[in-house]
Amino acid sequence: MLLTTHIIPLLSNKQIQGNIFSSEQKTLLQNTSIKQRLAMDSAVGTNEKVCFNSWCPLLIFDSMQKLEELALKIRKIGKDDPRRVFHSLKVGLALTLVSIFYYVNPLFHGLGTSTMWAVLTVVVVMEYTVGGTLSKGLNRAFATLLAGALGLGANHLAALGGDKGEPILLGVFVFMLAAMATFSRFVPEMKARYDYGVTIFILTFSLVAVSSYREEELIKLAYRRLSTVAIGVTTCLCTSMFVFPVWAGEDLHMLVAANLDKLACFLEGMGVECFGEKMESGSLEGKSFLQSYKTVLNSKATEDSLANFARWEPGHGHFGFRHPWNLYLKIGAVTRHCACSIEALNTYISTLEQSHQTTTDLEFKQMVQAACAEMIKETSKALAELASSIRGMKWSSTAGKHLAMATEAANRVKALVPAKNSTLLDVLISATTASLVTELVRCINPIITAVEELSRLVEFKRPEHSRKAGAESPPHVVIAID
Amino acid sequence: MLLTTHIIPLLSNKQIQGNIFSSEQKTLLQNTSIKQRLAMDSAVGTNEKVCFNSWCPLLIFDSMQKLEELALKIRKIGKDDPRRVFHSLKVGLALTLVSIFYYVNPLFHGLGTSTMWAVLTVVVVMEYTVGGTLSKGLNRAFATLLAGALGLGANHLAALGGDKGEPILLGVFVFMLAAMATFSRFVPEMKARYDYGVTIFILTFSLVAVSSYREEELIKLAYRRLSTVAIGVTTCLCTSMFVFPVWAGEDLHMLVAANLDKLACFLEGMGVECFGEKMESGSLEGKSFLQSYKTVLNSKATEDSLANFARWEPGHGHFGFRHPWNLYLKIGAVTRHCACSIEALNTYISTLEQSHQTTTDLEFKQMVQAACAEMIKETSKALAELASSIRGMKWSSTAGKHLAMATEAANRVKALVPAKNSTLLDVLISATTASLVTELVRCINPIITAVEELSRLVEFKRPEHSRKAGAESPPHVVIAID
Repeated sequence: MLLTTHIIPLLSNKQIQGNIFSSEQKTLLQNTSIKQRLAMDSAVGTNEKVCFNSWCPLLIFDSMQKLEELALKIRKIGKDDPRRVFHSLKVGLALTLVSIFYYVNPLFHGLGTSTMWAVLTVVVVMEYTVGGTLSKGLNRAFATLLAGALGLGANHLAALGGDKGEPILLGVFVFMLAAMATFSRFVPEMKARYDYGVTIFILTFSLVAVSSYREEELIKLAYRRLSTVAIGVTTCLCTSMFVFPVWAGEDLHMLVAANLDKLACFLEGMGVECFGEKMESGSLEGKSFLQSYKTVLNSKATEDSLANFARWEPGHGHFGFRHPWNLYLKIGAVTRHCACSIEALNTYISTLEQSHQTTTDLEFKQMVQAACAEMIKETSKALAELASSIRGMKWSSTAGKHLAMATEAANRVKALVPAKNSTLLDVLISATTASLVTELVRCINPIITAVEELSRLVEFKRPEHSRKAGAESPPHVVIAID
Repeated sequence: MLLTTHIIPLLSNKQIQGNIFSSEQKTLLQNTSIKQRLAMDSAVGTNEKVCFNSWCPLLIFDSMQKLEELALKIRKIGKDDPRRVFHSLKVGLALTLVSIFYYVNPLFHGLGTSTMWAVLTVVVVMEYTVGGTLSKGLNRAFATLLAGALGLGANHLAALGGDKGEPILLGVFVFMLAAMATFSRFVPEMKARYDYGVTIFILTFSLVAVSSYREEELIKLAYRRLSTVAIGVTTCLCTSMFVFPVWAGEDLHMLVAANLDKLACFLEGMGVECFGEKMESGSLEGKSFLQSYKTVLNSKATEDSLANFARWEPGHGHFGFRHPWNLYLKIGAVTRHCACSIEALNTYISTLEQSHQTTTDLEFKQMVQAACAEMIKETSKALAELASSIRGMKWSSTAGKHLAMATEAANRVKALVPAKNSTLLDVLISATTASLVTELVRCINPIITAVEELSRLVEFKRPEHSRKAGAESPPHVVIAID
């Protein structure tokens, strides 16, 4: 762990700007096989020397290549969001401030070992977003205060039990409180907001209740601990809020807009590729830039955690203190539902492209295709409009207009049918349902394949008859629906 | 926080088994309005007394009711998974063991304040699953060791800088290491496995590097810290592994099977309700037990974290040390894809049910319906079979057989069409695509509504013309596709 963090930042400067190996050197190294190099070396030295001399640069080259890959990866992480670099520097800054203060200030020497709580607090409390830092810092401060007071009380109460009763009573108190507090973490609301506070509460209570100091000393200790924790939390908050702050609320705001944009971008691409004038039957699977919509499907955890942190943040920029963060979660949920719909459509279209399509050029087909193209185009525009409306915090009714146009196209398709044949509608509804169910059936195949793979690797029990027949691997089922 | 954890477990015994208020008392209290009670009380006392006397029981009753609700909720959490109760007791046990040991053992008194690291370690390291505890414990132990050694080195190096140079050099070291280590947490692989280790690494390095002890004292301190951390980690591991262990791997195994079962259960219900002989058009939305499949869509985060912990666990039961946990993630991914498909089908069917359906009784429609019913039934059986196959770790080829039957039904639908009309296939493909796109368009409406609500609450900027017209709220668009 240390090695990589130590070496990579050094490499990322050297290697990326002026590659350690020139491209010619690399090509040479790659083209020369191990055998060839062994032969080359054996001409000049002993056998033992050969092994060492020829493997050593190979190993170095191999690890250099891996390090280069890692450096590129790390550089990409920093480039994707430069605030990550700033955050790392901020943590360094806050820690250095507290450490130097601790090291230099004679006041700290007087306070003794409890001063390390300040350093500890900075390391543990400093989070990427302001909301995260605030949430952890306040949780830590209040939990310490509350648990300290209760610990003092428990200590006082246990002292009434006499010399024999005291440790027993203290044990009972610690056991009960720890068990209750731990159980409270299973309540989802507690878990989301006060999880860290509960940990610190148990910690401080145990430390204060069990410490064998006299009461006056305990109060002094509690005072010291509180003041050092306060120093740590204040340092974190100042660094977090006033030096390039990263607001969880703003991130959530941008994430929700970006997710809408991803869907819009995919639909735009699909409209051009599958329903456009070119009507290419090239699969969309290959176009990786269009596949980013799939990340929307798994965005719930990120959104939840950002919304949770955002609630702790004070008003900033366009966001007031009581900004309706819950609404972002609501938008996120309906966006995911839409992404699911897109996933179903995408799967259907890509299986259509794989199967043989009839080429009867029907007037009906063309009309439906045109309507679909319009629906998709307008939907994409509506989504993009909503995203930019959120991003700029500027309402526009254009999204509604685009939706109205998409709806008009949808109704046009519906209207096509009864004109042709009154019973065709029944056929269409049945056919659509059947298509969707067929898609569902198709989904089962990869599940079976995956479970099969598991059963083979883990050696699931086999039924008697197949074991008798000597069938080691389960029958591999591949079912194609044409 | 403390109040609730303190009081609720007491209440949960009293209130749930023998309700504090009898049902008659409750009805009486609910039926008597505040006004009536004010009037009743004013007949016997002064005005001031009235306010106090009448509001006081109301407030108490109100908070009692809230506490009762909370107690019921907490009881449900414990009942849903009794291992949670055991876990809470285990944390209490581990903490009491370490605390009492610390309090009673004279050896500990000799070691001074560094002994509290043992208590601290237990509180921070003890996790719900064995894998979680192991991951945190090993991260903590190794990070402490590594950072301690590096800190000593840094201290030694800085001492060469003389009296003036030492604090500056130390500051630079702490800054660089903290910044680098923090940045490494943005690498996804680091974040997933060694996040806690990096925190402890920064923490220990800062503490050791900055502490103003002489070197011999530092080594003594490092030894003490390591031994106390080891005591804490060992206590946690023993309690976690040998007293009612909760294995993350087993949980992942069961979760993956349960998710397959949820899908199977929904499909079975849907088959009976929508495609069965009754063919009720009652919406599935109301049947909450069927809606549990929706949780499958958001199960990725839980699966990832369980798989991550499972990798740390030693072999147990049916699971070897190198059990292919990645395969569970793969099964999870294809299961979610299937859930998406089900979501699309469910949405389509429930909108169909809401709209007017034509009642032309077509032979074709009935045949498709029957085929769909069979597909859904067989798919549901295949999924249930896969779930029980995973759960029992017993391979059966029945799932493949069910899938084959579902596929046969799907092909039967396809075969129906050309017999009737050769160009109908084109119509059907177009129609299905159009239906799916229409579904997509329908998804946009809730998104627009949600963004609209946000724009109203947060007061997004309005375009000039609408502000002039005095339109305060944005035009609410509701678009129905019939």
